Amino acid sequence: MEECPDQYFSSYEDLDAGAKKVYAVEASNIADLAKEVVKENKLDHIIEVIKEKVEDIKIPKVDAIVSEWMGFYLLHEGMLDSVIYARENFLKDDGEMFPESATIFVAPCSIPSLYNNWNNVHGVSLKCFAKELRATKNLRPEIVEVKPEDLLGEEIAYCWVNMREDTAEDLNEFTLKHVVGASKNGNYQGLCVWFECNFPQLPDGTGDGRVVLDTSPKSALTHWKQTVIVLPHEQDVEEGEPIAFELNMSRDPTSSRRYNIQLSMLSPEDVDHPLPCSCHFTKCILTKAVLAQHAERALIENKMDDEKVGIIMDEPIDDDDDDS
Amino acid sequence: MEECPDQYFSSYEDLDAGAKKVYAVEASNIADLAKEVVKENKLDHIIEVIKEKVEDIKIPKVDAIVSEWMGFYLLHEGMLDSVIYARENFLKDDGEMFPESATIFVAPCSIPSLYNNWNNVHGVSLKCFAKELRATKNLRPEIVEVKPEDLLGEEIAYCWVNMREDTAEDLNEFTLKHVVGASKNGNYQGLCVWFECNFPQLPDGTGDGRVVLDTSPKSALTHWKQTVIVLPHEQDVEEGEPIAFELNMSRDPTSSRRYNIQLSMLSPEDVDHPLPCSCHFTKCILTKAVLAQHAERALIENKMDDEKVGIIMDEPIDDDDDDS
Repeated sequence: MEECPDQYFSSYEDLDAGAKKVYAVEASNIADLAKEVVKENKLDHIIEVIKEKVEDIKIPKVDAIVSEWMGFYLLHEGMLDSVIYARENFLKDDGEMFPESATIFVAPCSIPSLYNNWNNVHGVSLKCFAKELRATKNLRPEIVEVKPEDLLGEEIAYCWVNMREDTAEDLNEFTLKHVVGASKNGNYQGLCVWFECNFPQLPDGTGDGRVVLDTSPKSALTHWKQTVIVLPHEQDVEEGEPIAFELNMSRDPTSSRRYNIQLSMLSPEDVDHPLPCSCHFTKCILTKAVLAQHAERALIENKMDDEKVGIIMDEPIDDDDDDS
Repeated sequence: MEECPDQYFSSYEDLDAGAKKVYAVEASNIADLAKEVVKENKLDHIIEVIKEKVEDIKIPKVDAIVSEWMGFYLLHEGMLDSVIYARENFLKDDGEMFPESATIFVAPCSIPSLYNNWNNVHGVSLKCFAKELRATKNLRPEIVEVKPEDLLGEEIAYCWVNMREDTAEDLNEFTLKHVVGASKNGNYQGLCVWFECNFPQLPDGTGDGRVVLDTSPKSALTHWKQTVIVLPHEQDVEEGEPIAFELNMSRDPTSSRRYNIQLSMLSPEDVDHPLPCSCHFTKCILTKAVLAQHAERALIENKMDDEKVGIIMDEPIDDDDDDS
């Protein structure tokens, strides 16, 4: 819960059976309430609430750091820098981070709540209203629930944050040029952004498999919903049509907890297509077929019938041929 | 929709087939957008958007006034006074008001989102947090979704607003003393307030029966949800236990669009019980039985077997006997 202290440092022999000592660090007044909650649950012999910024405290090194630092689209007004400071100063070498990594995904999408829903409201056309509404969304990304059926192409991992190793500087800027083939006919109206967080397995091996917080449109709705970057003008796309863009997120120079986001629409001819690519450019269709053939031949020749073979090519093909 | 002009005045021969002339009155800048919407829908020969307060305009008398003036719990920051001004100045004698009446209902309830939900949050007791949370709700009623199963007694009509006749002065103050028997064992934590609005039948007799906007917990959720007045301390009640209260709503002297609300818990012995009363006081149980007997006897004696008989008594019984 966000109302509770953001950061916990715990020293444990068996986390599952209960930590021996927990430092709960929270600078705001909510720390006072946290102290009451600790007492109410008769845990004051274990949990010590420290009402300070983590940058100002002194505690022994700990076995694990647990923090709910994630903002909208992961990075928005998040507390990541403070968590990295805590790791660099208070985590034992073999300590665990909860979560230990996070990935941002992006995919093209429709946004009915800002476009199509206004075309016919009980028989009234409200397109000019929707246009004004979108104009208010140009300055900041919009937090909405995106339905899986509104996604218009496969997602790509935009960036990966390694909570065990990344420094604050590693998070200064992310950028990606990408092309994706539209997965169906539709109205391309924005870029949908979401994240997932991965947690370490518990030390005694309990828990069944990966522990993941997934905020994808295909998963159950969370507090974070999804974030959409709204296009100023929609674009009709056909199945297989390449959608090319460049997305840049960089820290705001005046406020390091904020990121500036820039989305540029690119011509699909000017971008290296991935391998394989889902778009309907002739080169991509041919390459996909060749890759499939290679994979099949490799399977036969090496008699590796029971194993999957992945083809890895180092150089992206230079696709300057548009047959759309 | 709230974004659209709040008040429409229409002159029609056949509302169902379309009004001849509509005056849409809206003082804020949203009127400019309304003008665009009218154009977009090619209705500018019928709808005239007037960007002024209704108190400042001059238009001919109209056949109908349509207005979405309802605030939370009906009266909160509503536009009712302006609608009454419009009726008194611009409605023909045989004109129609949409809606034509509204009723506020109240019933005792549980509020899990402010009480019981915090007793065990993934194994953690957060009662002290819930107490702080409730303390922030003492100054204003809370807008929440109340589930039908959280109602703890039958609702009573708190007040009835007649849009055809009531003056602004008629709405200055409402007050009600009431007793209701708890419909089941539970935690009495607040008073649930909601409203319904009734609309006139269309003049050509179309439409199937009453047209009602119902914001009851038993109906589909609306923008208004329900309003709860939170008790500072919860009270365990048993089925049949009388719950007595006095509820007063009066205009804020400094802002006539706001109401001050006062809820007083009363001793059930100090309040006249309704007839019949659902509580388990001996007098109420006996009176209920006597009323039922009377009704049966009247049916037999008057051979009115096919008609229902209502017993009306002028004087409430004086119930000063508590057998709970």
